[in-house]
Amino acid sequence: MQDYLDDLVLALSTEKNRGKVADYIPQLAHVDPNQFGIAVCTPEGQMYSAGQADTLFSIQSISKVFTLTIALGKLGDGIWTHVGREPSGDPFNSIVQLEHESGKPRNPFINAGAIAVVDAIMMGHEPKETLAEILNFVRFISNDNSICFDHIVAASEMAHRDRNASLAHFMKAFGRLRHDVDKVLGTYFHQCSIAMSCEQLARAGLFLVSDGVDKTTGIRVVSAQRARRINSLMMMCGHYDGSGEFAYRVGLPGKSGVGGGILAIAPGKGSIAVWSPGLDKLGNSYLGTRALERFVQHTGWSVFGH
Amino acid sequence: MQDYLDDLVLALSTEKNRGKVADYIPQLAHVDPNQFGIAVCTPEGQMYSAGQADTLFSIQSISKVFTLTIALGKLGDGIWTHVGREPSGDPFNSIVQLEHESGKPRNPFINAGAIAVVDAIMMGHEPKETLAEILNFVRFISNDNSICFDHIVAASEMAHRDRNASLAHFMKAFGRLRHDVDKVLGTYFHQCSIAMSCEQLARAGLFLVSDGVDKTTGIRVVSAQRARRINSLMMMCGHYDGSGEFAYRVGLPGKSGVGGGILAIAPGKGSIAVWSPGLDKLGNSYLGTRALERFVQHTGWSVFGH
Amino acid sequence: MQDYLDDLVLALSTEKNRGKVADYIPQLAHVDPNQFGIAVCTPEGQMYSAGQADTLFSIQSISKVFTLTIALGKLGDGIWTHVGREPSGDPFNSIVQLEHESGKPRNPFINAGAIAVVDAIMMGHEPKETLAEILNFVRFISNDNSICFDHIVAASEMAHRDRNASLAHFMKAFGRLRHDVDKVLGTYFHQCSIAMSCEQLARAGLFLVSDGVDKTTGIRVVSAQRARRINSLMMMCGHYDGSGEFAYRVGLPGKSGVGGGILAIAPGKGSIAVWSPGLDKLGNSYLGTRALERFVQHTGWSVFGH
Amino acid sequence: MQDYLDDLVLALSTEKNRGKVADYIPQLAHVDPNQFGIAVCTPEGQMYSAGQADTLFSIQSISKVFTLTIALGKLGDGIWTHVGREPSGDPFNSIVQLEHESGKPRNPFINAGAIAVVDAIMMGHEPKETLAEILNFVRFISNDNSICFDHIVAASEMAHRDRNASLAHFMKAFGRLRHDVDKVLGTYFHQCSIAMSCEQLARAGLFLVSDGVDKTTGIRVVSAQRARRINSLMMMCGHYDGSGEFAYRVGLPGKSGVGGGILAIAPGKGSIAVWSPGLDKLGNSYLGTRALERFVQHTGWSVFGH
Repeated sequence: MQDYLDDLVLALSTEKNRGKVADYIPQLAHVDPNQFGIAVCTPEGQMYSAGQADTLFSIQSISKVFTLTIALGKLGDGIWTHVGREPSGDPFNSIVQLEHESGKPRNPFINAGAIAVVDAIMMGHEPKETLAEILNFVRFISNDNSICFDHIVAASEMAHRDRNASLAHFMKAFGRLRHDVDKVLGTYFHQCSIAMSCEQLARAGLFLVSDGVDKTTGIRVVSAQRARRINSLMMMCGHYDGSGEFAYRVGLPGKSGVGGGILAIAPGKGSIAVWSPGLDKLGNSYLGTRALERFVQHTGWSVFGH
Repeated sequence: MQDYLDDLVLALSTEKNRGKVADYIPQLAHVDPNQFGIAVCTPEGQMYSAGQADTLFSIQSISKVFTLTIALGKLGDGIWTHVGREPSGDPFNSIVQLEHESGKPRNPFINAGAIAVVDAIMMGHEPKETLAEILNFVRFISNDNSICFDHIVAASEMAHRDRNASLAHFMKAFGRLRHDVDKVLGTYFHQCSIAMSCEQLARAGLFLVSDGVDKTTGIRVVSAQRARRINSLMMMCGHYDGSGEFAYRVGLPGKSGVGGGILAIAPGKGSIAVWSPGLDKLGNSYLGTRALERFVQHTGWSVFGH
Repeated sequence: MQDYLDDLVLALSTEKNRGKVADYIPQLAHVDPNQFGIAVCTPEGQMYSAGQADTLFSIQSISKVFTLTIALGKLGDGIWTHVGREPSGDPFNSIVQLEHESGKPRNPFINAGAIAVVDAIMMGHEPKETLAEILNFVRFISNDNSICFDHIVAASEMAHRDRNASLAHFMKAFGRLRHDVDKVLGTYFHQCSIAMSCEQLARAGLFLVSDGVDKTTGIRVVSAQRARRINSLMMMCGHYDGSGEFAYRVGLPGKSGVGGGILAIAPGKGSIAVWSPGLDKLGNSYLGTRALERFVQHTGWSVFGH
Repeated sequence: MQDYLDDLVLALSTEKNRGKVADYIPQLAHVDPNQFGIAVCTPEGQMYSAGQADTLFSIQSISKVFTLTIALGKLGDGIWTHVGREPSGDPFNSIVQLEHESGKPRNPFINAGAIAVVDAIMMGHEPKETLAEILNFVRFISNDNSICFDHIVAASEMAHRDRNASLAHFMKAFGRLRHDVDKVLGTYFHQCSIAMSCEQLARAGLFLVSDGVDKTTGIRVVSAQRARRINSLMMMCGHYDGSGEFAYRVGLPGKSGVGGGILAIAPGKGSIAVWSPGLDKLGNSYLGTRALERFVQHTGWSVFGH
């Protein structure tokens, strides 16, 4: 495995087409597009990695997997009154579907859905308390207390919040958010600003590999059924309107972020995190997707074969 | 397994809510909604079944899996110039997406996409020849030469073709169909009219269970990669705008038909066919979905766990 | 008036930008784009004209004003169960609105609406009879029995009917057409193929100028209220998604056709017909619109001033 | 005229169906639905009125006519880079069209368009200065310095701004607003809160009756062409997705507000203001529309007849 990852990094290092780095906030636009990292963690916690696998990056929308997990813990199936669980067929920041469906987001992984999830888990608390809860959970599943928010990224996203503010106010107008829009958005942007490395991220995904249990500690994080359901949502909706493409090419549940990271889960086999800042036109890591495609072809870890 | 299936049939026999039988053509509307069948075929061909598992029913849209397989064989990746491979987020017969995307259907499993696939595999031939090719393929993978079209169903669908005719003419107006609209539709409706039992259908799905090989005969039907990709498309798009729901509840690649059948694939484990004529409001078998949900909870065959 | 029209034709003769001739059927594509004609008819029947004002052209969608008038005569307000009377905000051949509103077209001047109007006035009769009725009406209001269908144009449109066939089958699927789709389309294409000159067309519009009465004959064609309402529909919907632009520039009720003609009504003042085959990107005569804009600036005939 | 208005008020006083009072802010919801007023002002300033014609009400969206007039004065045709001039076919607060057309509102009379117009006329100034400019203009054309904002209504709308905030942030995200969203909204809500009576409103519309000139003072407010163009926009877009209906029933350029007022312009004949707080389901005064329909049938002032 280690040799393969080293070879993969070498092979990809000459790749010229790397997509475009997200440029809607300066903090993301300044990231060097020539970086690439990959980490693979086995169910028992054996870590393999190559490239810039311990460089911190902004996990952005990958955090939506963690807040959904928290929401399922707090509200159970009640979360589905706040968001649906179907692919939307639309871009991550589309508002058309909200108008057609009374302000209820199609799924928890498009922006509107993730904002609704944050609102749902706030439960009358202040952003600070909710953020502590989110960070604690991420640190817990990563087994790493060094993980932090990047307040500069969060502040910059708040300053450029118009598209997400539009989504949030729209939902609020339909009575779908219970908290103050700016507080919800502030919480949401902090959640997205969490900085992690590929190794930390791969580690954090372990509970989804083993039916809800972190086998390295023996702790059950969620029930087996819930772990499977979260994986199904990652498969169906994890890459916005590129989810079908990711399923076709990679064949694993995965969640991307505009920071260039992707977390992919191979049930029973391992958790894989890749990172390369350049994005394809749908907002998913260009080189990351291709690395995962090669990786799965090599390992045969697709859930669609055996 | 046999005992479990018997128990399952017994348990479901008292279920009162069975959805609504498709009523847009008389031939489907007349089917008794109280029927239910299930068949499970292991990779080696061991068949378990219960209920009306050898009753013939109209496979309808399940046939789209087979014509897509034929199309991939004839055109390879060229088929993707004819149809996309993303969930549409819209009902099976929606035309809105076609207008927004220059007449190119989102995926091969919505009606417009399946019609485009039929047009693509006709390649200048007459409907009769294309239909022979489709039937031969279905008989081949089912290892059963008794399988036939139901010409009465096909004729009735042709007589009530307006919604599909609208889709076909729309695509034709964008230059996306090369053959005469009525010939394409005639072929499409015959393909959908194929009558099969749960046992025949489960048998037909075996090549998708074992990475493209029918292990009972040792014959490779498609490459391993292609089998996985077909499975990924079934997962992402096999139940129209209920695909997310099916993935969440069942966790297997599957394809439904308005005749009430569902074919589900558990890679490496087995092929499952269920049938119950009543449909939910999205056009998928109501009891069939619930039977598969129970079956997967019992067997743990979800691709999202291990 | 005659001097002004002569000057206008001269001024426009050097205009280089003339839009693009409709090319979806060969018969329209072959028309010389350098032609231009204008005719103005006063309420009392005094005719002024310049340019190719007696050249026949295909009136196309201008015919929709006449079939709507017939439909109002036969069904009265009952026609509004078949079509609405709001601008659609969409192109003339859009199908999106139909899916969102159960197959009911927004207004009688988009293609779907005009097809629904034809179906409504057929009332169980054969196309031949309905066409005779339409032609008789057009000859009556034009006071000219030489007006005819152009069967070659109609046949060519039938051969290229896919976009309109899509609309018609869609409406049929919602139970909104009572006759055979091809018979309705055949009637519709013949209606559109009527060949008239600017002078004939201006004459035909007189009843809309004088509150429903043709003052040259003293015959009341429709009630005053109905004439005003037809004018209002021409104003609101007569140029598809360019209706706002036409109202802003010209300020008169008007109806355009892809043959390059426009009929405009100045209540109490006159009926104006212009013709130039080149179209703007929304399908309305490029030079015709500009000619009307100048004409109204010169005469002050806008309904929005006095 | 006076007798007719008295009769009209009497006839409508027994009308039971009066629509529903706008309830999205308490200040509007508390208005007594049984009120009705009408005022007609001739070009020379002769005022006829009946019912509660001197009761102040919130003019709401009628103010959009005045800010558009200011914008045309300041930016000329430059305003059309900020908003379009086509009917949208959508409700007043729809956001779908914005996503499909890069954040540019279809016309200046839907909410998004009016917000864009306010942003355009702010030109770097503070809300207070822009509001002074708007109020001065309204006082000038009304020849009445007593007209004021209703700060309580404005504050209440600001507190319930979510739907409009969504529109504003959406446009801001596309770079279509240059000022701070909350400042633009604050200005917009104050503009909408202007309180006027039917008599004041009818007086304010005079410049649109007489080709841009207020004949009572002899002052030219806008050019004749501009007055006609504003009228055309009122006709095409003044009642949102009920504009076609208003044109069909009333046949005059008009602008409605959710306060229950409507200003209608009969070029050369008079300016009419009606007010009744109950709204139809599209947000236009129910009784006000019916009163205007009767009025025009009686007077024959429709622009579509003579």
